[in-house]
Amino acid sequence: MQTDALVIGAGPVGLFQAFQLGLLGLSVQIVDALPQAGGQCIELYADKPILDIPGILECSGRELTERLLAQLAPLAPGWHLGHEVTRLARRDDGRFDAACADGTAFDAGAVFICAGVGAFQPRRLKAPGLEGLEGRHLHYHPATDPAALDCFAGQRVLVIGGDEAALVRAAALAERPGQPPVQLMHRRDVLQADATLLTRIDALRQAGHLVFHAAQLASARQDEAGRLLQVDITLSDGGLRTLDLDTLIVCQGLSPRLGPIADWGLAMDRKLLVADPATFETSAPGIHAAGDIVSYPGKKKLILCGFHEATLAAHAAHERLRPHERGPLLYTSSSTLLQQRLGRHG
Amino acid sequence: MQTDALVIGAGPVGLFQAFQLGLLGLSVQIVDALPQAGGQCIELYADKPILDIPGILECSGRELTERLLAQLAPLAPGWHLGHEVTRLARRDDGRFDAACADGTAFDAGAVFICAGVGAFQPRRLKAPGLEGLEGRHLHYHPATDPAALDCFAGQRVLVIGGDEAALVRAAALAERPGQPPVQLMHRRDVLQADATLLTRIDALRQAGHLVFHAAQLASARQDEAGRLLQVDITLSDGGLRTLDLDTLIVCQGLSPRLGPIADWGLAMDRKLLVADPATFETSAPGIHAAGDIVSYPGKKKLILCGFHEATLAAHAAHERLRPHERGPLLYTSSSTLLQQRLGRHG
Ligand SMILES: Cc1cc2nc3c(=O)[nH]c(=O)nc-3n(C[C@H](O)[C@H](O)[C@H](O)COP(=O)(O)OP(=O)(O)OC[C@H]3O[C@@H](n4cnc5c(N)ncnc54)[C@H](O)[C@@H]3O)c2cc1C
Ligand SMILES: Cc1cc2nc3c(=O)[nH]c(=O)nc-3n(C[C@H](O)[C@H](O)[C@H](O)COP(=O)(O)OP(=O)(O)OC[C@H]3O[C@@H](n4cnc5c(N)ncnc54)[C@H](O)[C@@H]3O)c2cc1C
Repeated sequence: MQTDALVIGAGPVGLFQAFQLGLLGLSVQIVDALPQAGGQCIELYADKPILDIPGILECSGRELTERLLAQLAPLAPGWHLGHEVTRLARRDDGRFDAACADGTAFDAGAVFICAGVGAFQPRRLKAPGLEGLEGRHLHYHPATDPAALDCFAGQRVLVIGGDEAALVRAAALAERPGQPPVQLMHRRDVLQADATLLTRIDALRQAGHLVFHAAQLASARQDEAGRLLQVDITLSDGGLRTLDLDTLIVCQGLSPRLGPIADWGLAMDRKLLVADPATFETSAPGIHAAGDIVSYPGKKKLILCGFHEATLAAHAAHERLRPHERGPLLYTSSSTLLQQRLGRHG
Repeated sequence: MQTDALVIGAGPVGLFQAFQLGLLGLSVQIVDALPQAGGQCIELYADKPILDIPGILECSGRELTERLLAQLAPLAPGWHLGHEVTRLARRDDGRFDAACADGTAFDAGAVFICAGVGAFQPRRLKAPGLEGLEGRHLHYHPATDPAALDCFAGQRVLVIGGDEAALVRAAALAERPGQPPVQLMHRRDVLQADATLLTRIDALRQAGHLVFHAAQLASARQDEAGRLLQVDITLSDGGLRTLDLDTLIVCQGLSPRLGPIADWGLAMDRKLLVADPATFETSAPGIHAAGDIVSYPGKKKLILCGFHEATLAAHAAHERLRPHERGPLLYTSSSTLLQQRLGRHG
């Protein structure tokens, strides 16, 4: 896939990176290991209010993501969610080859690493009988928008986990009309989430739409076609129970893994990419970095700083890729060209 | 007036500078030469849509200003609008003395120059008979909020100017119930503003609430108490007319004047303040700068870049002024302390 710019990471900074690149007229492909955009804002604090985005009095991590997606939409980048970029190499012609584990490949003029604290990896469930279920009957931290939850309609689901990520998914499913009661399992009898969500869970339990087990998974059973049939769980009092199930949703936490990025030969400083604050170029010309992954004197891991870094990175890359387009800085409020790119005319 | 931080300039960057300083627990005084906050956003493109503020799909210069003011409000900085800071000097104890032309004086621990392209100065009206009227019967670019226009209630007003700044004020006044017809004068018979505003002006002319003159000021006459009585104007066809008036509002453009800042002994590069991109400190320790006034490698004169610069400047100053408070970066979404400062608890 040929592109001017490849953006690795669709956290808040990757999203704005794609916006600035598109605004400068460059084509953009954007990749994230997670099934949804938003990075830490969605995975770690989707429903908490952020109060320091300039000009936005208050917005949750989810709202910020939605706002950035809406702003980016008219520039129509190519999307590759659920893909981790594992390989990146410079070609002889100065362009870059990048590839994901599943073979998706890119040929890019410039690369923007907006990988935050790394690709989020779910803590895996371990028990006999789970082999081959992942992606079909076993899902880690599935996307939480209603459309994504649609595919579990009518199924008998066990959600495993005790914090917000698990509870949000369990509640959203249990609230669907016609859904069989959702099972929620956590090793301890203590659930962690804000008061509103806990109240929602309580109401669902009382109405019989949600059943809670303080227990751990012992084993799973599949039929010959590899369909999930049942799981055995060990209750906290030592007893054993068997649940008939169609689907397991597992939210036992995500931990970021810098992973492949450390192997790309870029200068690093304590797991961060060293970048030039004038261009946000890494030690490799043509490879830029912005957001939490970046290190430079004075760096603060704040979203608004990432927005600035992405902006300078986009301008530097644009100057390198399109030297003939060099000219005075254009403003969105006064440039018809920029407004057209954002779909404002005709 | 003692303060931890003095912010010079209440453009978008000065407003966010004050926000970041207040968030870090520092006391803030903010000064602007103009009668209202917003800088270029208000003076040059109040009603044009800005499309590249991260997370805000579209907002006019005025809306952005209002949003930044609302975000800053809970931190309650001290306000000094209509004051130009003319003097700045370091004291022996490492603090700073700053003063405005009218004598307002500050004793500040750190100074933040967010002066954009300089203090906006109105193009002055020149004609015999205007001496001593300014501030009483002659106003340059008065604030446009309804409260500010209240003081012209019932008066016979001549607005001079032919672009948006003049037309907005003329229309707002002419639309007030009980206001005598507003006179609008511009040297040419061509008014420049967006279609909506021009339509508003046309409607007011047709209803007799607004009278237009293609003319220039010849002279003014005052009574013995120094009250404005009349002006003589030269029509574009050469004829002369006399208008009975209480007040002159003059909007013939603003031009920025770096003015005193160039005399404060700070290192400059082509009329911009040289600053360190790690701390946004100028060549004088303790004096920071952010926004359009700043020069460093890669600098782009964009609002979002100024937000970042102000943020790093605030953190650097906080570390210097309160070294004992040094600690891990706090997030507004998770720190009760920051939330309290923003008025979110109790
Ligand atoms: C609890 C908490 C509260 C916070 N509150 C605030 C706040 O109030 N204000 C504020 O400004 N900041 C806050 N932050 C910090 C803020 O969340 C981060 O600065 C921000 O998320 C950084 O954005 P990013 O896009 O650089 O990285 P991330 O949000 O980490 O996104 C990086 C993305 O890159 C993807 N990725 C990584 N490697 C690869 C790869 N090889 N291939 C494909 N995809 C990859 C990841 O899956 C991830 O989605 C908070 C952080 C936390 C943890
Ligand atoms: C037509 C136009 C359209 C634009 N569109 C966009 C856009 O779409 N997106 C974008 O990001 N940027 C845009 N910009 C640029 C943007 O307006 C500036 O980057 C921004 O205003 C800079 O903010 P600031 O606070 O640094 O300075 P300013 O907005 O210039 O504010 C500086 C303030 O400091 C005050 N001041 C100066 N000296 C003194 C003193 N000695 N004492 C007291 N007060 C003083 C001034 O009166 C002024 O109010 C545009 C600019 C123009 C002209």
